[in-house]
Amino acid sequence: MTAQSREIPYKIYLEENELPTAWYNLRADMKNKPAPLLNPATGAPMSAEELEAVFCRDLVRQELDDTSRDIPIPKDILDFYKMYRPSPLVRAYFLEKALETPAKIYYKFEGNNTSGSHKLNSAIAQAYYAKKQGLIGVTTETGAGQWGTALAMACAYMGLDCRVYMVKISYEQKPFRREVMRTYGADVTPSPSETTHVGREILKAHPGTGGSLGCAISEAVEDAVSHEGYRYVLGSVLNQVLLHQSIIGLEAKAAMDKFGIKPDVIIGCAGGGSNLGGLISPFMGEKLRGEADYRFIAAEPASCPSLTRGRFAYDFCDTGHVCPLAKMYTLGSDFIPSPNHAGGLRYHGMSPVLSQLRADGLLDAVALEQTSVFSAAELFARVEGTLPAPESSHAIKAAIDEALKCKETGEEKTILFGLTGTGYFDMKAYEQFHNGTMIDFIPSDADLEQGFRSLPAV
Amino acid sequence: MTAQSREIPYKIYLEENELPTAWYNLRADMKNKPAPLLNPATGAPMSAEELEAVFCRDLVRQELDDTSRDIPIPKDILDFYKMYRPSPLVRAYFLEKALETPAKIYYKFEGNNTSGSHKLNSAIAQAYYAKKQGLIGVTTETGAGQWGTALAMACAYMGLDCRVYMVKISYEQKPFRREVMRTYGADVTPSPSETTHVGREILKAHPGTGGSLGCAISEAVEDAVSHEGYRYVLGSVLNQVLLHQSIIGLEAKAAMDKFGIKPDVIIGCAGGGSNLGGLISPFMGEKLRGEADYRFIAAEPASCPSLTRGRFAYDFCDTGHVCPLAKMYTLGSDFIPSPNHAGGLRYHGMSPVLSQLRADGLLDAVALEQTSVFSAAELFARVEGTLPAPESSHAIKAAIDEALKCKETGEEKTILFGLTGTGYFDMKAYEQFHNGTMIDFIPSDADLEQGFRSLPAV
Repeated sequence: MTAQSREIPYKIYLEENELPTAWYNLRADMKNKPAPLLNPATGAPMSAEELEAVFCRDLVRQELDDTSRDIPIPKDILDFYKMYRPSPLVRAYFLEKALETPAKIYYKFEGNNTSGSHKLNSAIAQAYYAKKQGLIGVTTETGAGQWGTALAMACAYMGLDCRVYMVKISYEQKPFRREVMRTYGADVTPSPSETTHVGREILKAHPGTGGSLGCAISEAVEDAVSHEGYRYVLGSVLNQVLLHQSIIGLEAKAAMDKFGIKPDVIIGCAGGGSNLGGLISPFMGEKLRGEADYRFIAAEPASCPSLTRGRFAYDFCDTGHVCPLAKMYTLGSDFIPSPNHAGGLRYHGMSPVLSQLRADGLLDAVALEQTSVFSAAELFARVEGTLPAPESSHAIKAAIDEALKCKETGEEKTILFGLTGTGYFDMKAYEQFHNGTMIDFIPSDADLEQGFRSLPAV
Repeated sequence: MTAQSREIPYKIYLEENELPTAWYNLRADMKNKPAPLLNPATGAPMSAEELEAVFCRDLVRQELDDTSRDIPIPKDILDFYKMYRPSPLVRAYFLEKALETPAKIYYKFEGNNTSGSHKLNSAIAQAYYAKKQGLIGVTTETGAGQWGTALAMACAYMGLDCRVYMVKISYEQKPFRREVMRTYGADVTPSPSETTHVGREILKAHPGTGGSLGCAISEAVEDAVSHEGYRYVLGSVLNQVLLHQSIIGLEAKAAMDKFGIKPDVIIGCAGGGSNLGGLISPFMGEKLRGEADYRFIAAEPASCPSLTRGRFAYDFCDTGHVCPLAKMYTLGSDFIPSPNHAGGLRYHGMSPVLSQLRADGLLDAVALEQTSVFSAAELFARVEGTLPAPESSHAIKAAIDEALKCKETGEEKTILFGLTGTGYFDMKAYEQFHNGTMIDFIPSDADLEQGFRSLPAV
């Protein structure tokens, strides 16, 4: 098998002028729309006015718009996209060979930018709308650091102040992520911190805590609403984020269409749902409109199994309960994954859009243990070259499992998965894996029950 | 200025079938050939037989061949190249705008692979020829870690054992680089080590030393020659390495030719010369054949100024004096850059090919202080997105200086520079820069005289 004689190249790059010029809003094609965000005090749907106290104006519009199918991408954002997009669609010839599978495996690789992941797709959009509104800056939280880095890059480009609350344990374990953000001029604070009311309360209740994403969200929101000229931005979960991330799926679909390829199975890792939602959007749209059929699989960590073991219910988006309620698959806002869990995908909930699709039987999900995920990551690195992020490696593992099923059955399925990012800042986790000190952790039903107790009575 | 309306896209990617299928051997067009390697014991040119005790057979052939102009790239190497090549040629629209320069700036970006640099281009070639010879494995040294990572990736692909001697201070300061190499199955030893005779001697003479590249080379060579089925491979300096790296320049030239662009100035950072030599090769070939004219600039650190302040003389390639002598611009094999020096480009000598071109007046050189280099790196990261390696940032700084000269004179020069890699494993140095603790160090004439005293009397 020679690369030269293959009809389909190893990497398919769209031309710059083939870049999508509009995002695709999947909600327009959903019969059962995702449930609206609720005001926790009144139980009523959040109005645009209420949301605008926290979020940028145009982003609130996008958040609430579940009817416009195509949303044009502003020119400034398109210009920025051209720094690192179109991203390649890669045919995993070497992985196929290593697995001896008849399956054809493709992955959309979003890691070739300094943020190291797909997060930049939404960061630049959110920074753009903040700038357009004349704001001074934005606040956010970051866990593993990909979203914070992406936002720092976008804010540097737009000339905005960027304040990042970084989960304390990540802040300490990933000093280099912090330095990347500082290179782009961001202000990074370990969370929980003494700088916010909610941070001080959490520190009082849990002295010495390493923090959590839900807690960092609470601090970032408080910071934004208590400073004029600031708004809060979020890198996942929200409808607007999935909208921006639709660029992943649109490009992947355009590249596949160019070569007449139709995937049978589409796989993405799922934490808050930004990558999975973006990757599947245009394909799911076809399915909803009855134009094509695909199988969709969310790959999540067994240690934080919102889609496979969570409840579909209204819940708080953050630990401090300063955010609206969202209807989603959730483990409860008090749920914190085991400290043994490496990498991201540690959010207690899941995007309302994906949650609704899951509830409607349109989205399958698998929960994977991390040592098996790192084994898949190492195999992938050795044969495909790229060292993947732990998050992305959940999708790799799920794709390998599908490809091995094809090997058993002889089916020549076409598998598409999202390779969201690189693992260059996750080598501590790889070190644990190499040294054999990485352990798996699956929460017991009793562990989960404890998390569910924090669900609000709505 | 909109990206859409520009004739030249932000990134120019060649198609996979436009990948060069032969390396270009610049020596074939050089009137004054680089001087041969000498046996330090006899003073006579090293024979192929002598070299084959250390290096792989086919690589020795390439090392000695200064007449064949085009050397076909074996199919297995081409297949591997397709994992991460063609690499993009980027028009630095955003940098041009930030500098308000009439100059047109392009960079060939070699960092979008897990080794994080251009080193992979030669690593896969060397691993291929080692495998072809039926060897068990290869040994090498690494400083900043890019070459070691690249070789580990290539050996994983070829199924070869890979033993890396990593400069001890880097081994300790860059544990994550080590983990990347381990992910690809390499065996990494901090140098100087107790595992070799030369390592033990150096440790006896300099207890507590952080090591040097020249010392790690000595250990790797000793390891190779004392174990059957092993050979030593080197990531820079050698003729064969520049040959493999010509892929950089060939692709850059093909991409520019496609759009009718002709550079006026071509700039590369220079440590041992692998990237600079590769980038300029086809352009220099045109100049040597009288077909076109270009200005070439080597950008080197002021703290390790071989081209600007070194002597053009025969010297040892390593500290332990186990290697042949090479005629090159050198600071003496005892020269070790100040510990304040961050990043790579710390080799005492320079590729014989580039040294000869320099001696013949065909290659200009500038020496840059590191704080100004990191300032350029930070500006570049913020406007162009990619966070550059400290090494590559020397070329960025030199390119910015050229572009600012154009701003003064109004000249619309076209500048091409090599962006060899990303700085994701160099955040310690960025942290020093952010904290204001990075200092510049320019060796005094007396410092240099001390290094020159280690030159052999040939």
